[in-house]
Amino acid sequence: MFAELKNMSVTEKYLITGFSGFVSQHFLNYLETNCISAQILGIDINTPDFSFRQFQHLKCDFQKVDLLNKIQVEEIVCAFKPNYVLHLASYSSVAFSWKNPVESFANNTTIFLNLIETIRLSGIKCRILSIGSSEEYGNVSSDDLPLKEDHNLKPLSPYAVARVSQEMLSKVYVDSYGMDIILTRSFNHIGTHQKDIFVISSFAKQLVELKKLNSTVKELTTGDTSIIRDFVDVRDVVYAYYLLFKKGKKGEIYNVCTGKGTSLNEIIQMMTSLLDMDVAHHINQQLVRPNDNKIIIGSNQKIRQDTGWEISFSLERSLKDILVYYEEQVLNPKSLNP
Amino acid sequence: MFAELKNMSVTEKYLITGFSGFVSQHFLNYLETNCISAQILGIDINTPDFSFRQFQHLKCDFQKVDLLNKIQVEEIVCAFKPNYVLHLASYSSVAFSWKNPVESFANNTTIFLNLIETIRLSGIKCRILSIGSSEEYGNVSSDDLPLKEDHNLKPLSPYAVARVSQEMLSKVYVDSYGMDIILTRSFNHIGTHQKDIFVISSFAKQLVELKKLNSTVKELTTGDTSIIRDFVDVRDVVYAYYLLFKKGKKGEIYNVCTGKGTSLNEIIQMMTSLLDMDVAHHINQQLVRPNDNKIIIGSNQKIRQDTGWEISFSLERSLKDILVYYEEQVLNPKSLNP
Repeated sequence: MFAELKNMSVTEKYLITGFSGFVSQHFLNYLETNCISAQILGIDINTPDFSFRQFQHLKCDFQKVDLLNKIQVEEIVCAFKPNYVLHLASYSSVAFSWKNPVESFANNTTIFLNLIETIRLSGIKCRILSIGSSEEYGNVSSDDLPLKEDHNLKPLSPYAVARVSQEMLSKVYVDSYGMDIILTRSFNHIGTHQKDIFVISSFAKQLVELKKLNSTVKELTTGDTSIIRDFVDVRDVVYAYYLLFKKGKKGEIYNVCTGKGTSLNEIIQMMTSLLDMDVAHHINQQLVRPNDNKIIIGSNQKIRQDTGWEISFSLERSLKDILVYYEEQVLNPKSLNP
Repeated sequence: MFAELKNMSVTEKYLITGFSGFVSQHFLNYLETNCISAQILGIDINTPDFSFRQFQHLKCDFQKVDLLNKIQVEEIVCAFKPNYVLHLASYSSVAFSWKNPVESFANNTTIFLNLIETIRLSGIKCRILSIGSSEEYGNVSSDDLPLKEDHNLKPLSPYAVARVSQEMLSKVYVDSYGMDIILTRSFNHIGTHQKDIFVISSFAKQLVELKKLNSTVKELTTGDTSIIRDFVDVRDVVYAYYLLFKKGKKGEIYNVCTGKGTSLNEIIQMMTSLLDMDVAHHINQQLVRPNDNKIIIGSNQKIRQDTGWEISFSLERSLKDILVYYEEQVLNPKSLNP
């Protein structure tokens, strides 16, 4: 399958797990937009619903793989020999982890172990970016904000525990085998192409549909909207990931966040104002998670210092782009994937 | 299978996972010796190599189960309806976790999740004792000794990470679902019937064999013997577990340890002195673990305070009993299991 790529002179080879997710699409766009030549092998259990062959600077291939299948992972890693591994694959829904903790846990920890064990045993020298989550911090008091990377971790969901486990396993592999792993704690990222099971996309889609329907009863269905999160545009997230590959320090953990907190109520206000509409909202108790974090805001001092990263997209800009994305989708469902 | 037990009037029902291991045997002996009537269902992936039907106060049954098989676990838990669950099942070898991290991790975390999810969903009210390990603390400086339960955890092996994960998952289930889980960090326990892949049993067995052989070259094969551990007699450990079932506080973590550290060199000296023999020792580099903890000593203040637990067996007594056990085994291999 790599025959056509063998004669290329590109030096950077990226293996991207969780290729079919929305972060991956934005990472590809980042490389392309910045004229970074690279050879990409995407792997995922799901086939991507976007086209990945239209790039000028990227040679992109995809293989359908279940990362729980260690033998397949070995074959792929050893054939491709990546310089960089962007490990995005994850069952990243907190809600799913409450409903299916066993499956969620294995699909976060076992897949990661399969990947790093394969890389270790193959002897391939590559830098691995292990994506973690702000959920790892757990419930924190306002005195602790913004959260720094050395803050205690008190994970509050099976998903969050899996993420902390992945981080601890990474440290073991860095310390014991000298593997080149960098770790993130990525805060809530938002952007186009995100699945609408995630809160901002869910709100945007509902609001755009409500507006289009021109219904008299305009009611948004939500969980607890008082929670405060540090929302970061996925385009800033993938820029951070690229910089971490180039400038991050081996074995270090980096928050990827804006340093600012916004409540879901404020998000709803900003969106309805952008759409010029009024809505009531209805709390569906089934969407209220047991024992959820009330407030999460991170410090991005460390990543800015080590990599020179800066935020480029304001929250208003992010929300506007997401709403436009859903407006296009509602008007013309087939134009979804550019 | 429980027909014969149905008419019994015993009130305490213990489900013991990892039933075929040596801790379980000693727990049964503790109940029997103290005339505690109980109904026991032991489950394990391996059939026990000891007899469990000779007790006067215990009604003991066994079922062969792979705890990774969730359906089987559900059937057993729902049929037995335990009051207490002693979760001893674990791939507890640090060395194995280096060689087979994926298997080790799943056989510590997934089996635990299967068990607590089953109990949660069944609605059965029972107290679960989740056994953790001193390995969770990781490398510590001498200023931190003896280690208290609120000390930072920096696990250094895949096994230790799995144990911390189990603890974090327990906390999630206590906090979110109100489940009655108590957690231990059990330090190196030693005693008769322990597998000789564990260090003290390995030394005892080798020494007894060397003595019997009357060989001129008496050389003990070891890993790093400068490491210091807090060795606790398994008979004291199972006493602690029983007290934790009765007096432990829900959601709390308890060190199970002596508060004293002993180097492997000292252990070898004590054993050779008890056997009245001299040996040289040879370090096998393959037995030296990457990145091992140098010293681990715990504080047992909390468990003593909350349960009244006290140490009954001195280290010398423990070593003596282990040596006698191996002497009997070497003299008469068939008398192994009383």
